[in-house]
Amino acid sequence: MTADLLLTGARLATMAGPAGLGVVENGMIAVAAGRIAWAGPRAEAPEIAAAERFDCAGRWVTPGLVDCHTHLVFAGNRADEFARRLAGESYADIARSGGGIAATVRATRAAEEAALLAASVKRLDALLAEGVTTVEIKSGYGLDEETELRQLRVARRLAEARPVSVAATYLGAHAVPPGGDRAAYLDLVCERMIPRIAAEGLADAVDVFQEGIAFRAEECKRVFVAARAAGLPVKSHADQLSDGGGAALAAAHGALSADHLEYTNADGAAAMARAGTVAVLLPGAFLMLNETRKPPIAAFRAAGTRMAVATDLNPGSSPIASPRVAATLACVLFGMTVDEVLRGFTIEAARALGRAERIGSIEAGKDADLAVWSVDTLSELVAQIGPSPLFMRLHNGVRA
Amino acid sequence: MTADLLLTGARLATMAGPAGLGVVENGMIAVAAGRIAWAGPRAEAPEIAAAERFDCAGRWVTPGLVDCHTHLVFAGNRADEFARRLAGESYADIARSGGGIAATVRATRAAEEAALLAASVKRLDALLAEGVTTVEIKSGYGLDEETELRQLRVARRLAEARPVSVAATYLGAHAVPPGGDRAAYLDLVCERMIPRIAAEGLADAVDVFQEGIAFRAEECKRVFVAARAAGLPVKSHADQLSDGGGAALAAAHGALSADHLEYTNADGAAAMARAGTVAVLLPGAFLMLNETRKPPIAAFRAAGTRMAVATDLNPGSSPIASPRVAATLACVLFGMTVDEVLRGFTIEAARALGRAERIGSIEAGKDADLAVWSVDTLSELVAQIGPSPLFMRLHNGVRA
Ligand SMILES: [Zn+2]
Ligand SMILES: [Zn+2]
Repeated sequence: MTADLLLTGARLATMAGPAGLGVVENGMIAVAAGRIAWAGPRAEAPEIAAAERFDCAGRWVTPGLVDCHTHLVFAGNRADEFARRLAGESYADIARSGGGIAATVRATRAAEEAALLAASVKRLDALLAEGVTTVEIKSGYGLDEETELRQLRVARRLAEARPVSVAATYLGAHAVPPGGDRAAYLDLVCERMIPRIAAEGLADAVDVFQEGIAFRAEECKRVFVAARAAGLPVKSHADQLSDGGGAALAAAHGALSADHLEYTNADGAAAMARAGTVAVLLPGAFLMLNETRKPPIAAFRAAGTRMAVATDLNPGSSPIASPRVAATLACVLFGMTVDEVLRGFTIEAARALGRAERIGSIEAGKDADLAVWSVDTLSELVAQIGPSPLFMRLHNGVRA
Repeated sequence: MTADLLLTGARLATMAGPAGLGVVENGMIAVAAGRIAWAGPRAEAPEIAAAERFDCAGRWVTPGLVDCHTHLVFAGNRADEFARRLAGESYADIARSGGGIAATVRATRAAEEAALLAASVKRLDALLAEGVTTVEIKSGYGLDEETELRQLRVARRLAEARPVSVAATYLGAHAVPPGGDRAAYLDLVCERMIPRIAAEGLADAVDVFQEGIAFRAEECKRVFVAARAAGLPVKSHADQLSDGGGAALAAAHGALSADHLEYTNADGAAAMARAGTVAVLLPGAFLMLNETRKPPIAAFRAAGTRMAVATDLNPGSSPIASPRVAATLACVLFGMTVDEVLRGFTIEAARALGRAERIGSIEAGKDADLAVWSVDTLSELVAQIGPSPLFMRLHNGVRA
């Protein structure tokens, strides 16, 4: 076997298999043409002629992290609202004075594509510095045709600006546009935007926000049907603030994932397991909104629902540009185990993007997206908040 | 007036005055001989002949951050215990198998001074990268004469290894040494260690852990009396897990600060206000221990108790090497305002160390310890979790 690069002396957490970390001590990874050509214990390795060798010196190697739920393309910031809320102003007062999501929509509509790209690159860099090799990015701060398309184009351009894979998601059904007509906007989303975005290849999936303050079940269903008709898989922000049956609805439409899920009940968890819909848990928003109702981790475990974790990076409810902090919070606040969280940022997150055949584990044939960590134990990745212990990141086999 | 360095074009949050941020738009700071020679609005500045000028280009400048409660000198790490707890093992089981504080004591006793210094420098660097210019460091992981002195020496050496001011605190009364005799250990602390440490100048204060699982009120009182007799001010870990009257006891002994305080009652808060004892709030431990009882912020405000915030950086309950994350958590979990938290990491933290005459605000005569931030509003410092927006740090007037 020939290889472009051979990593030796590595402790691997391959994430191969249906559960657990797939640990391989004294492991080797051969990279050829951007893919993993071989991975496993040194003792079982074939003859490998490598153009370059790198000794990991006993460091841990995981799949590159997959942040499967972000809203990182936006303009402006809402830090002042954070301060105002703490000083006693209500959400309603802030919204009435033009704050909240409307503020981000206004700033994003006003931002030219270059400015939007520049602001977004900074946030992306924060994720890459913590080992991310694939990031999902949603639109949803334009809520008009032009700006939604601009957000998606910026998401695509980020994959050229930086060595990272991007999954773009059209979230037109994030909110009714400020001052807009609900029915007319849903028509726009379903009849014009989804077909156009599918035809132009601007998104890999379509998402909705099903909630009392956003869209109702029958409205989300219409979006799901339009997306599937256009050949795009679907996702859902479901059951975050109330049990609206969002998880079950998403599962019924074969969604890749349902996300948030604080109020999901056991039936919803079981429906997700049967449909293969991944539960994407977002502890950053739970923390920043000071929520108390936790997603039903025990029900997910009992049903066999797969669980991913993501940053939900956004300017309002989860201004957290750190998968490691999100991972720590998933453990502390939701009681997930370290193994669950590490799978949740790799193979299960890949599944939530429909990319588990290509990324998320260290297995021959997959993209050589890898993270090498300066830690003695993998628990250190999530048990501590502070500087990133990332030693090296490879994207498509290239050190980046 | 002559100056070594003149910062211009700065927006200042001086923290001068009894409350608020002391904002100065279009401000200037003149630095001479490591001190602030003049600070204020450009329009009111005297004639200043400066050897060097630096244009802050509208950036915000705050006092350098003061992290007034850490345990950052230790060896080993307890990430595996974090994983074991999440996987279902109890604290008691982990303690029985040699984990918990006993594990850190074992590792710290076994670490030579150079190794302890090297491990501690890494953690210190994480704090400096977020703008810290003064850090308090406690002993308490030796619980024997030799190791406690080694921890304090390492704390002192850190101030030589890096451009930072260190306040060293002797926390012999952290726990009864594993397998040790309670009364004999307290004799050692009060009769031998405190006088020796005072004589050798190895610590700036003496701290205790008053709690059911640590030391009782009368034991802490004995430590306070011994410390004051040796000329050292005192501090206390008080009322963290139960209301033991720790805040009031600390106040009665003129403590610089009482720290944690989740269970402190209104009388304790009032006693602290009268004594000038600062309430040091530690949201990192609150988060990581998944506590629900919050410190009585409203009672502190009502009584006029001064409030500081700190990381509590330690290997067990608060492995958080980030003042910014601690600040965010103080807002989100405790409901402190952005202004309170920013004062809490500067002037009030300085007061908690008995150093408010020298550091903690931007005022003529104080040490030129400054942090320059790449943010548009100060709220961004605490409203977002992610990379540090620190642009420049000055310690004693030197860019570091
Ligand atoms: Zn979202
Ligand atoms: Zn402490």
